[in-house]
Amino acid sequence: MIIIMSPKATQDDIKRVEERIRMAGLSLHLSQGAERTVIGVLGDVRQLLPDSLQALPGVERVMRILHPFKLASRDFEPNPTVIRLPGGLEIGSSRLVVMAGPCAVEDEETLLETARAVKAAGASVLRGGAFKPRTSPYNFRGLGKEGLELLAKARKETGLPVITEVLSPQDVDLVAEYADILQIGARNMQNFSLLQAVAKVDKPVLLKRGMANSIEEWLMSAEYILSGGNRNVMLCERGIRTFETYTRNTLDLSAVPLVKKLSHLPVLVDPSHGTGSRDLVLPMSKAAVAAGADGLLIEVHPRPERALSDGPQSLMPPAFEALMAEIRPIAEVIGRSA
Amino acid sequence: MIIIMSPKATQDDIKRVEERIRMAGLSLHLSQGAERTVIGVLGDVRQLLPDSLQALPGVERVMRILHPFKLASRDFEPNPTVIRLPGGLEIGSSRLVVMAGPCAVEDEETLLETARAVKAAGASVLRGGAFKPRTSPYNFRGLGKEGLELLAKARKETGLPVITEVLSPQDVDLVAEYADILQIGARNMQNFSLLQAVAKVDKPVLLKRGMANSIEEWLMSAEYILSGGNRNVMLCERGIRTFETYTRNTLDLSAVPLVKKLSHLPVLVDPSHGTGSRDLVLPMSKAAVAAGADGLLIEVHPRPERALSDGPQSLMPPAFEALMAEIRPIAEVIGRSA
Amino acid sequence: MIIIMSPKATQDDIKRVEERIRMAGLSLHLSQGAERTVIGVLGDVRQLLPDSLQALPGVERVMRILHPFKLASRDFEPNPTVIRLPGGLEIGSSRLVVMAGPCAVEDEETLLETARAVKAAGASVLRGGAFKPRTSPYNFRGLGKEGLELLAKARKETGLPVITEVLSPQDVDLVAEYADILQIGARNMQNFSLLQAVAKVDKPVLLKRGMANSIEEWLMSAEYILSGGNRNVMLCERGIRTFETYTRNTLDLSAVPLVKKLSHLPVLVDPSHGTGSRDLVLPMSKAAVAAGADGLLIEVHPRPERALSDGPQSLMPPAFEALMAEIRPIAEVIGRSA
Amino acid sequence: MIIIMSPKATQDDIKRVEERIRMAGLSLHLSQGAERTVIGVLGDVRQLLPDSLQALPGVERVMRILHPFKLASRDFEPNPTVIRLPGGLEIGSSRLVVMAGPCAVEDEETLLETARAVKAAGASVLRGGAFKPRTSPYNFRGLGKEGLELLAKARKETGLPVITEVLSPQDVDLVAEYADILQIGARNMQNFSLLQAVAKVDKPVLLKRGMANSIEEWLMSAEYILSGGNRNVMLCERGIRTFETYTRNTLDLSAVPLVKKLSHLPVLVDPSHGTGSRDLVLPMSKAAVAAGADGLLIEVHPRPERALSDGPQSLMPPAFEALMAEIRPIAEVIGRSA
Repeated sequence: MIIIMSPKATQDDIKRVEERIRMAGLSLHLSQGAERTVIGVLGDVRQLLPDSLQALPGVERVMRILHPFKLASRDFEPNPTVIRLPGGLEIGSSRLVVMAGPCAVEDEETLLETARAVKAAGASVLRGGAFKPRTSPYNFRGLGKEGLELLAKARKETGLPVITEVLSPQDVDLVAEYADILQIGARNMQNFSLLQAVAKVDKPVLLKRGMANSIEEWLMSAEYILSGGNRNVMLCERGIRTFETYTRNTLDLSAVPLVKKLSHLPVLVDPSHGTGSRDLVLPMSKAAVAAGADGLLIEVHPRPERALSDGPQSLMPPAFEALMAEIRPIAEVIGRSA
Repeated sequence: MIIIMSPKATQDDIKRVEERIRMAGLSLHLSQGAERTVIGVLGDVRQLLPDSLQALPGVERVMRILHPFKLASRDFEPNPTVIRLPGGLEIGSSRLVVMAGPCAVEDEETLLETARAVKAAGASVLRGGAFKPRTSPYNFRGLGKEGLELLAKARKETGLPVITEVLSPQDVDLVAEYADILQIGARNMQNFSLLQAVAKVDKPVLLKRGMANSIEEWLMSAEYILSGGNRNVMLCERGIRTFETYTRNTLDLSAVPLVKKLSHLPVLVDPSHGTGSRDLVLPMSKAAVAAGADGLLIEVHPRPERALSDGPQSLMPPAFEALMAEIRPIAEVIGRSA
Repeated sequence: MIIIMSPKATQDDIKRVEERIRMAGLSLHLSQGAERTVIGVLGDVRQLLPDSLQALPGVERVMRILHPFKLASRDFEPNPTVIRLPGGLEIGSSRLVVMAGPCAVEDEETLLETARAVKAAGASVLRGGAFKPRTSPYNFRGLGKEGLELLAKARKETGLPVITEVLSPQDVDLVAEYADILQIGARNMQNFSLLQAVAKVDKPVLLKRGMANSIEEWLMSAEYILSGGNRNVMLCERGIRTFETYTRNTLDLSAVPLVKKLSHLPVLVDPSHGTGSRDLVLPMSKAAVAAGADGLLIEVHPRPERALSDGPQSLMPPAFEALMAEIRPIAEVIGRSA
Repeated sequence: MIIIMSPKATQDDIKRVEERIRMAGLSLHLSQGAERTVIGVLGDVRQLLPDSLQALPGVERVMRILHPFKLASRDFEPNPTVIRLPGGLEIGSSRLVVMAGPCAVEDEETLLETARAVKAAGASVLRGGAFKPRTSPYNFRGLGKEGLELLAKARKETGLPVITEVLSPQDVDLVAEYADILQIGARNMQNFSLLQAVAKVDKPVLLKRGMANSIEEWLMSAEYILSGGNRNVMLCERGIRTFETYTRNTLDLSAVPLVKKLSHLPVLVDPSHGTGSRDLVLPMSKAAVAAGADGLLIEVHPRPERALSDGPQSLMPPAFEALMAEIRPIAEVIGRSA
């Protein structure tokens, strides 16, 4: 940690900072520049909160040297994490994993029809929401437990493992009973009670990036789950909020190679939510694969115009089949199978 | 609602949209322009989701005419909502309400010392966190129930009502037992399970704006609480996330007059989190009052450099006293007391 | 155009709007809803500024139906524009065009060395700045005319056409004398004097997206050049400004398929400026090609640590050669040559 | 400057950085931590570009300690700059300066009518655009030289000094002949040719903040003008671009006290462009004054619905008079006259 003193800092101010560092059992190096005094702190500074130093009189700025995440970092674990599902599916290995299905589980027939279609096209996980976060209290918020049962039925019929979102700590055990992967949605990326709850279950977690969250905060939320005891965490970029209004979000694909450099966790991309527009799902899926994503989440619905949520960005089964056919050769070119 | 068809839309595409609108029991007006067909929908469109129309072939754009919030809107309730606390304090009336105290409740002595100081300076509510949302799992996350008990003790001694944050639906009943106002933090603005839970209790709720949430989404989250049965909702602007890095957030003061125009709910401002810097709390408090805020949330700590969170933005009691002295004449000039 | 009246609008307010529309020679359709009156305007509304209607009493909102750009739109010109350079190179056709070279032209030897290297690796245009926009007045701002002469020399030796930035209307004629393509940088995307000046010359223009500019504003800036008489405009996405700080900018690749849908102009991508980091240039180049970009701008420098600007994002020639080798098969898979 | 080496950096990498620093005539301090080597550079690092060090192998991050601006900083000049206009008006002293007038100069009658009205209400500078930056090439772009002549006429009649925007380096001499203050608009904040041109004239410059520019970049643009020889620079906050769509921009009032802390230059606020909405101009003007702004820029037009640009945010003269009456007591309360 580096502490930059204000040009107006007195000798007393500097001494107070030195004492505080020594009290924490750390050593320091003081460098008296022409315009400012700079103090370098040596040792593990985790117990010395940057915040508390910043609050001392005469301190201009405190700069961290190390990333604040540890278990999530490549420094800690140089080898990529591979997550293994019961049926043998691996996430984070050389095979590209495509998770597809409707935004929300609506009824048995539609779900089964979709599940069969995405399986036939080559998807390896079925997605579908039983608990739906909705901006408006007047919109459809999912079938709840009934939706989970329908997902289980679809898994039984197709053999596809199932991913579904959990919204609340109270629901974690219930959802974990049915789902193969628990999804933490973008709006809950910093719902720390929920992160702690999914850290306690024995199911992999897919953690979506919050729409206004930095990559550092995203990895810190992964750190919550990892440090709470669940090492099977995968990340999913789904678009961030910017000033642009022609797209629903701005899909930040550079997050894929960047997170792979900083962390050992698998990274997937959700181009459906990331763009909000059916026409952009195909090109952005291709781009995500080319950028090195370990997998994709794609919304598929047989009748998007009747979908109870996110119809405009859902592909119909034939378009999804075409997408699978177009991403496969790109995956191969970069050394993956799909 | 206005539906703009693509220039390539066929007669069949247009017919399909018309049918869908009529199926919903609504009437329409079709206008054939030179370049595009535009369809206006008449009647209450709440059951006709814009999403599902957007998903129909040939539809270019769907534009809403009415705001999506109803109970929160001025159209619904033209008179400003005034929230009354047990001791008689009113929020949303002519008196400016200042809520002050430490970011986190740390120990009895510090809390009582702060409570006495802020009361003496003129604050009318004591703030303090017992459950703290923290970006890092390695930071202090609050004293929990013990913190709530200390807040109750401080209330007993000073007579100040107490506001504290609730992080999880399971904790709502516990927190409501102790607190006079429940706070929903910025990271939980779209934690819909939590919004539904606080809608069920008989305590006022202060809803902070999420750091990447639009004013519309903010009012929709208020709508969750209002439509769930709790009409005592106040809003709090606390800074949004932008590209600027010299401040922790960008305090959007224009939200104050704008929300007062769109809604009848009281609006407060938190310049401590909104700027992240002690030096900016005073000028931005003055600006917030001048912009018409109904109240302020200010972090006060007797020894900011020992605070377990948010030290750099906490004022010491003498600075808080000075702040109260400086905002009072501004409040008076704009017709408020403080 | 749709005009939504406030619920408080009087009959007089509505009449005033009607008159104003009729004065402009346009017809209208009035729809009296339960909560609001909505006025649809028929005909070409270009002379009726939305601004002036918004300023009328009782008007709540004015919504445009048509995109404000015309010459740049697909509606106006359904076939993709292909730009042909003197030597026969085509931009916007099936061949992927890679423009490579140093950020700034520094000296003859370095430039020639780089030019030979990028040509050998398969680049088809040489890039290099003679006039450099720099945030700090104390940084190197380019060699000016001498830089242009060195670029001409490099073109003579390698046969590569040359692209270089022009910063000021006064320099347009000089730069156009030497360059094969004029570049308008991100900071000048809305420098309208400059746009008008390049509209007058007989050289293709590459228009970079401003770092805080929407896609609509970008196409409006293209419209300036097109309507000013220069039809050879290509666009270049180079990252937008967001809250994320781990990357210099957020490269918005979804802009590529979106602009191709809205417009007939070719779209290139600059992953060097778009990410600011050497490690990200390769994966984002692959992603850009997969997303459908017509070309790439890549910074290459033989000794990045001595570069006078943008060293950290410059590739050394061997890394550029590897990049060309990796993007070629992706280009082929999506039906392009490279 | 602090250089953080990657954990994978070799001894050779570290040596290369050391050599580079010594070559620049600077000394250094090397600190070998458990996880990373950190190098502190002593002395004036201006000639050692952070960029070039960042490009060296093994370097993870380069962190600046000093602000990059110098002439604009409070460290350089502790006393506030006061700008004096020929008629004796001071900007940056205790009197609040209000600049008011139409967005664009349209015709003699309207301009004179507005000038008289704003003078009567207490404005001390007349604003009005003769050269207008417009997003669309099809919109009114100002009267040019004729507009300047009308402004001069209005000055002659009212005695109010005149501020007007200059868009292009070629126009600087012409505009400087007529105007008392040259305005650099938000879109031109990083038009470095223009900054250099206004640095050469003997007229004060008002530099608006770019809508996506950080406070640091804003002060660097001021540095261009100051270092080019013109010391009479004032700054103007006019809203930044964020995700919020209910306002045209997000007015960042915290920039006012922050810039006053970092710099000695006067800071004004433009709530008309900063909000884009007439209803918000009054509350945000009050807030700006309370936050410590040295002045305001307000758009006033006698018939906003006929204004050729920015009608929706223009006040009519009576509303402007009311605004002046409401900000005066706030100015007085914070120790200013108005």
